[in-house]
Amino acid sequence: MSTPSKPMPTDRFQPPRGTRDFYPIEMARRLWLEDKWRRTAVRHGFDEIDGPTFEHLDLYTVKSGEGIVSELFSFTRAGGETPFALRPEFTPTLARMVAEKANALPKPIKWFSIGPYFRAERPQRGRLREFLQWNVDVLGDPSPEADAEVITCCVEALKALGLREQDISLRLGHRSSVTGVLTFFSVSESQHQQALLLLDKYFDGKIDDVALGDGLRPLGATDAIIPFMSQMKQRSTDHNFFYPLDDPDREFAESLSAVYGPLVRALEAAGSRNWCHVDMRVVRGLAYYTGTVFEVHETTGAERAIAGGGRYDNLVELFGGPPTPAVGFAMGDVVISLVLQDKGLMPSDDQIARDLGLAPDAFVIAANDEAERHVLRPVLAALRREGLHARRSYRATRNIGKLLQEADKAGARYAVILESPDRAQVKNLHSKEQVEVVAPAPAPHDPQGLVEGIVRHILPPR
Amino acid sequence: MSTPSKPMPTDRFQPPRGTRDFYPIEMARRLWLEDKWRRTAVRHGFDEIDGPTFEHLDLYTVKSGEGIVSELFSFTRAGGETPFALRPEFTPTLARMVAEKANALPKPIKWFSIGPYFRAERPQRGRLREFLQWNVDVLGDPSPEADAEVITCCVEALKALGLREQDISLRLGHRSSVTGVLTFFSVSESQHQQALLLLDKYFDGKIDDVALGDGLRPLGATDAIIPFMSQMKQRSTDHNFFYPLDDPDREFAESLSAVYGPLVRALEAAGSRNWCHVDMRVVRGLAYYTGTVFEVHETTGAERAIAGGGRYDNLVELFGGPPTPAVGFAMGDVVISLVLQDKGLMPSDDQIARDLGLAPDAFVIAANDEAERHVLRPVLAALRREGLHARRSYRATRNIGKLLQEADKAGARYAVILESPDRAQVKNLHSKEQVEVVAPAPAPHDPQGLVEGIVRHILPPR
Repeated sequence: MSTPSKPMPTDRFQPPRGTRDFYPIEMARRLWLEDKWRRTAVRHGFDEIDGPTFEHLDLYTVKSGEGIVSELFSFTRAGGETPFALRPEFTPTLARMVAEKANALPKPIKWFSIGPYFRAERPQRGRLREFLQWNVDVLGDPSPEADAEVITCCVEALKALGLREQDISLRLGHRSSVTGVLTFFSVSESQHQQALLLLDKYFDGKIDDVALGDGLRPLGATDAIIPFMSQMKQRSTDHNFFYPLDDPDREFAESLSAVYGPLVRALEAAGSRNWCHVDMRVVRGLAYYTGTVFEVHETTGAERAIAGGGRYDNLVELFGGPPTPAVGFAMGDVVISLVLQDKGLMPSDDQIARDLGLAPDAFVIAANDEAERHVLRPVLAALRREGLHARRSYRATRNIGKLLQEADKAGARYAVILESPDRAQVKNLHSKEQVEVVAPAPAPHDPQGLVEGIVRHILPPR
Repeated sequence: MSTPSKPMPTDRFQPPRGTRDFYPIEMARRLWLEDKWRRTAVRHGFDEIDGPTFEHLDLYTVKSGEGIVSELFSFTRAGGETPFALRPEFTPTLARMVAEKANALPKPIKWFSIGPYFRAERPQRGRLREFLQWNVDVLGDPSPEADAEVITCCVEALKALGLREQDISLRLGHRSSVTGVLTFFSVSESQHQQALLLLDKYFDGKIDDVALGDGLRPLGATDAIIPFMSQMKQRSTDHNFFYPLDDPDREFAESLSAVYGPLVRALEAAGSRNWCHVDMRVVRGLAYYTGTVFEVHETTGAERAIAGGGRYDNLVELFGGPPTPAVGFAMGDVVISLVLQDKGLMPSDDQIARDLGLAPDAFVIAANDEAERHVLRPVLAALRREGLHARRSYRATRNIGKLLQEADKAGARYAVILESPDRAQVKNLHSKEQVEVVAPAPAPHDPQGLVEGIVRHILPPR
């Protein structure tokens, strides 16, 4: 029921469709995920960076053409400024930043970033208009070991989030293995990008054999390409099944082995070989990929891709930098969160608070009105100045049992029950041990003596 | 010199004017500042939240009128969607979020957020088009203790950043103390907001006495208001000078004491009274403030305001929620960073890396080609799987002295010098102690025995 006293109907004040409000519980889950991403990247030797949230629109159209504009939130300012767009992905910003300082940066460059991205699509399950994304890249190293390093960082993040090998399907493709097939079936090189886009849709089930044929024939493909691709599409992709390496067509298998062999050995050395299998059908839609491409899915295929990436050896040069081989991947927060929820792997709110170090050190309770009026606030402030995370009860009750329950519910390590300016009980809420603290020299208007006594009894957090 | 082989001149690929690229060093400083903000808010009992990066344009125009549109980055989507705007501030999002769930949320609500904000202004020193901002708010508590709590949180963050009482001028104003003066000089209540905007500019030195008179007279003000405001503007604002409380006009001073007295006592209890002084000239431009307002400046006034905030008791109701008293402040990253740099308080890059826990635990070196080919990568990956932050040298040299220098420069705690699949030297780079680790049962293709030996010698980080 709206009343005239409410100046606006509440439904006008919703977050935009496809964006999210993060109340404390949702925010703690987001921080927990970001923390796993950040810690994994740091321990793998990546440095954190970031760029602007919006860029010149040019940055996105130069490599993808005008077609991408409809998927971007773009805007202009009065006064003849060039148009801007909210960033839909990080790679162009990264390539621009590397191009700008390429000569001053020791190689390899190992960078990661975490931040918001934007796509002007219709929101649906796993796809929002604003989402968070973790980007991990190695630049300046053309070796398969660099590919293996970013893939291993991705695998280790999945492990840190509680996923196991059998939960995940990390599918490796290679642009050249598919472009080799395209050339074999008479598609000229200038038509490869167009053909890859069709194949990406075909392998994803978005178009059928007929539409694939209709699309590939004008690009010069012979008719035999359709049964070949159809067979490839239907082929089983059991976990750990290295598809091409036991192909009955030995010659073809050997040529693929040349493409995939060094990467597989590098994954072996990095300990993440068992999480990966080769799947030539992974081609990725983005135009800038040049070699290895990969996608991470939940094994049952219940959700969209969790992560995706690959090698993009020409992009830094396209943005005016020196030739710089590069490989990386991105993982969004939306699909991985759905997968963790589907599998019951999202930790409890209490566990998240503990993981993030958000549990209060001390929960301060006034045992009487006198303590509430004259002791609570100075002690609370002093404990915080000492570096402790201190909270208080705002409830009117003096029932200590109920107030201790509130302290427990807040996840606090200690309850501090203030009785007077010079006396408090400090209770360890895990061991239930309780000690009385008495200030050495009572000082009604300065709680420092009492605070020092309290702090001495509160052990540092684990 | 541009050459035809470079597809684009590099100057087209700059970040948009007024935005920033954060390379690793700049990013570490940003993370350090965010960490100080976050830790301070958490230990004062605030929970982190966030909202969308863009909102419906309506959210900003409803309280500020259409005038604000020129300062917003706004955009529309095809298909009849309502216009959006990049968020210029957090308070409207916060009020919307509280209005949405007000009845389900225990009071007081204590929330903070850290994220990017956007203003379509001409960039200048201290003012960028994209910046980070820390917002801290208490909602549902009308008491001066709530005002004191957010102000104390702000003061403690400044202290955590290395600033001292004498570096900072935290100026407290109160809307009603100024509106009282306006009423005294015959400005009717409906004209107060208009008059406050003029006074904000006047006290800021943006308009002179003549312009103030020309602006206030049409609002009904008597001529005597100009000498009064002129005297107020020129009054000394020495640190800790509680301006109105020793005013020769005792009656006026007493009325102000009624306004400021309870807040001053609450600041006293919270231990931050000495950082604050009353300055009636602080009125803040934003229309939604209703009581206490405050601004934080560097004492010499060399930079723009470091932070600002106040009480906004009507905003949640304006967005369709129940009446909810509220007080909060925001601190941007741009001005505080300039102040810290001006004062030489920004820590060294090494110190920041240590503060953020970004120093590597282990820096892995191959002592010979054999170790480089067969041991380095498996050991590096295994150390990372054990949870250690492990880096390696990518240099071609086998000069151990130079490689140890590189490990030192990286700030690593230990160097791990790999000699063979079953032998390594582990050197503590602080104490310079070195131990030899030998795997119990040599296993050329599985470094796990060696890794366990290494991990046993690497102490947990402090």
